[in-house]
Amino acid sequence: MPTSKLLYAQSGGVTAVINATAAAVIDACRRRKVTAYAARNGILGALREDLIDTSKEPAAAIKALRHTPGGAFGSCRYKLKSIEQNRAQYERLIEVFRAHDIRWFLYNGGKDSADTALKLSRLGQAMGYDIRCIGVPKTVDNDLVVTDCCPGFGSVAKYTAVSVRECALDVASMADTSTKVFVMEVMGRHAGWIAAAAGLAGTRRDDAPHIILFPENTFDETRFLQRVRETVERVGWCVVVASEGIRNAGGKFLSEAGSTDAFGHAQLGGVAPALAALVRDKLKLKVHWALPDYLQRSARHIASKTDADQAWAVGKAAAECALAGENAVMPVIVRTSDSPYRWKIEAAALDKIANREKKLPSSFMTRDGFGITAAARRYLSPLIRGEAPPPYGKDGLPEYVALKNTAVRKRLAPFDM
Amino acid sequence: MPTSKLLYAQSGGVTAVINATAAAVIDACRRRKVTAYAARNGILGALREDLIDTSKEPAAAIKALRHTPGGAFGSCRYKLKSIEQNRAQYERLIEVFRAHDIRWFLYNGGKDSADTALKLSRLGQAMGYDIRCIGVPKTVDNDLVVTDCCPGFGSVAKYTAVSVRECALDVASMADTSTKVFVMEVMGRHAGWIAAAAGLAGTRRDDAPHIILFPENTFDETRFLQRVRETVERVGWCVVVASEGIRNAGGKFLSEAGSTDAFGHAQLGGVAPALAALVRDKLKLKVHWALPDYLQRSARHIASKTDADQAWAVGKAAAECALAGENAVMPVIVRTSDSPYRWKIEAAALDKIANREKKLPSSFMTRDGFGITAAARRYLSPLIRGEAPPPYGKDGLPEYVALKNTAVRKRLAPFDM
Repeated sequence: MPTSKLLYAQSGGVTAVINATAAAVIDACRRRKVTAYAARNGILGALREDLIDTSKEPAAAIKALRHTPGGAFGSCRYKLKSIEQNRAQYERLIEVFRAHDIRWFLYNGGKDSADTALKLSRLGQAMGYDIRCIGVPKTVDNDLVVTDCCPGFGSVAKYTAVSVRECALDVASMADTSTKVFVMEVMGRHAGWIAAAAGLAGTRRDDAPHIILFPENTFDETRFLQRVRETVERVGWCVVVASEGIRNAGGKFLSEAGSTDAFGHAQLGGVAPALAALVRDKLKLKVHWALPDYLQRSARHIASKTDADQAWAVGKAAAECALAGENAVMPVIVRTSDSPYRWKIEAAALDKIANREKKLPSSFMTRDGFGITAAARRYLSPLIRGEAPPPYGKDGLPEYVALKNTAVRKRLAPFDM
Repeated sequence: MPTSKLLYAQSGGVTAVINATAAAVIDACRRRKVTAYAARNGILGALREDLIDTSKEPAAAIKALRHTPGGAFGSCRYKLKSIEQNRAQYERLIEVFRAHDIRWFLYNGGKDSADTALKLSRLGQAMGYDIRCIGVPKTVDNDLVVTDCCPGFGSVAKYTAVSVRECALDVASMADTSTKVFVMEVMGRHAGWIAAAAGLAGTRRDDAPHIILFPENTFDETRFLQRVRETVERVGWCVVVASEGIRNAGGKFLSEAGSTDAFGHAQLGGVAPALAALVRDKLKLKVHWALPDYLQRSARHIASKTDADQAWAVGKAAAECALAGENAVMPVIVRTSDSPYRWKIEAAALDKIANREKKLPSSFMTRDGFGITAAARRYLSPLIRGEAPPPYGKDGLPEYVALKNTAVRKRLAPFDM
């Protein structure tokens, strides 16, 4: 059994399926008799030499990891500074790798993580330490370039489309005497992929959602209110899906526009309540709003099977790439056919992916800016297909696993971050 | 085939399983060769003589109704005035019944609907028109008396417990560098049943939810903040579930305490953002919040099988009771055993149910007021057991049915409401 180790770390916001990627990495290592370590709380664990030995976990736990949401080893929001600004951090990472004979580093995240993995691969070479660094795609925002889609997105897309379809039935039932306008806020600060996925809920004209507000478009209060009014007049009710990232003509996030709450404190963000108040005050219509926040990205119970399969596939490919000696790449999803939907995994160079952002193309938004086009449906529809429910216990709750996360004995002095 | 008709109407907020009750009513009528009408938009449809002939729906549609959320015929928020205040409305209902030979009236709702059904049964007798009026229990709030639980509650309880379990994994993953406190707001303006159900998400000390805020208890800012701080110090993060109905010592709903939003308008309700701002400002902790609103009560995709079965059972029993000649009763759920969980349906007198409210008993809340007791778990746990997923299409979305809702030809002059 080789003594060299593979280190896996999760980065940024977690998803319903990132642990499926982790499970695939560990599974691939076990098959190859390579010990997989995980960094506790992402890159911070690597900096702190706070490592977890996944070989201490029973096979059943790793199997259950495949259907457990959240980040099993902890993730973090921590962006390394540039090498110029903080070379010591990067050197520390190489030092930790060297101390534990870590020869493969898999960083599971978005565009920032791809950048970190790329830099580490270069620094390893510069420092004469043989380390293979692989980026593994993950983000609910679906904003990574090169890859056709990102694991994590398909499940939040499915959650969103299913929720819109369900609450639309509720609103339609009650509109005669109660709520006429319903506003649901979804994630997506810079890119409207999740908002677009809401559009899959409806298939015919006048199906919900009637209005989608994308962060790619400037919010126009007058046009918005006019469309709400028209919809209520024609349909009887109106469902609005708004991305958290929508901004007004001044470039200000609606969710950040200053407001004061019940305690006299500045209000916390929320596009949905802001839009709801607007509709109520300007149109005098009864309105309700929802803001599922983390519920949407952790909803493993309604995960997309396509997404769960892809999350597994990128993890497996990442470990195999690394162990085969590849470096500075990311396994990406390549779509080879829309109908029937077919995809495969290929390795793409990290320098083509790092720090870039993929917004929703304008061809995916209808000309009025309030809906999605047939091209968007062709792209999005396969990503929410298939169900992959977790096992449920007799108590009616999903059986998610909590790992032991056994720490690896430290070999280095603490590092001053 | 008898020419007399049965009229079914939905009332108040809809649920994930109220249509299962409707499907059972229609199914029972079809078996007995009785035509079932439905009132469009609840009692308003009866007042307006806006009736739907469910016999025009194919069997497949009625089958699909069993797994479709929302109210298939429309519901309403419309409380009839007292007979003394508006006798004409009650007489109109009897007139509509007489015009269409409606001899059985099933009203599917909560305590107000039970009251309306009771009054109609009495008025029918007084007016010499033979009408059998049956209440059918439905409410996500679970606040009906006599019945052990209400169809609709088990599914929102399951949605809530599953969502809390899932988002807790998310928060735990990120707490090192990101959100430390997560606040989720749930329905329940007067009774804390849904909030209590969130408690099922955790099974061990320090599992989420760490704090539940029930409307039965006065909100104490100091104690709340202290508990949040202690939890974050001990666990590293804290999940709070707050009922929309919590009030401060002055009796004011936190969600209604005046606040102003981004547009300078009075803010719409929301306990979660108010609590979140409090935590952020007083404890300087990073906080996120969610407010699923209608998503929680329409989430048929995560319905409780127990709940779906009970929704069907009360509908079946209601139709059978009515057709057997019973009057002024409601089929209620009687629990005969906690473990194994066993229940049966019995008919209870409407005058024991109408206009009464069942709050969460104090024995269900821990002494500190922030959690649920073993007694609460014994009661709640069976209600979320079992999964009853809807069928999914190839597009990855649940296949919910939209009925044709063919109108019955009117026979009366319009009624001035």
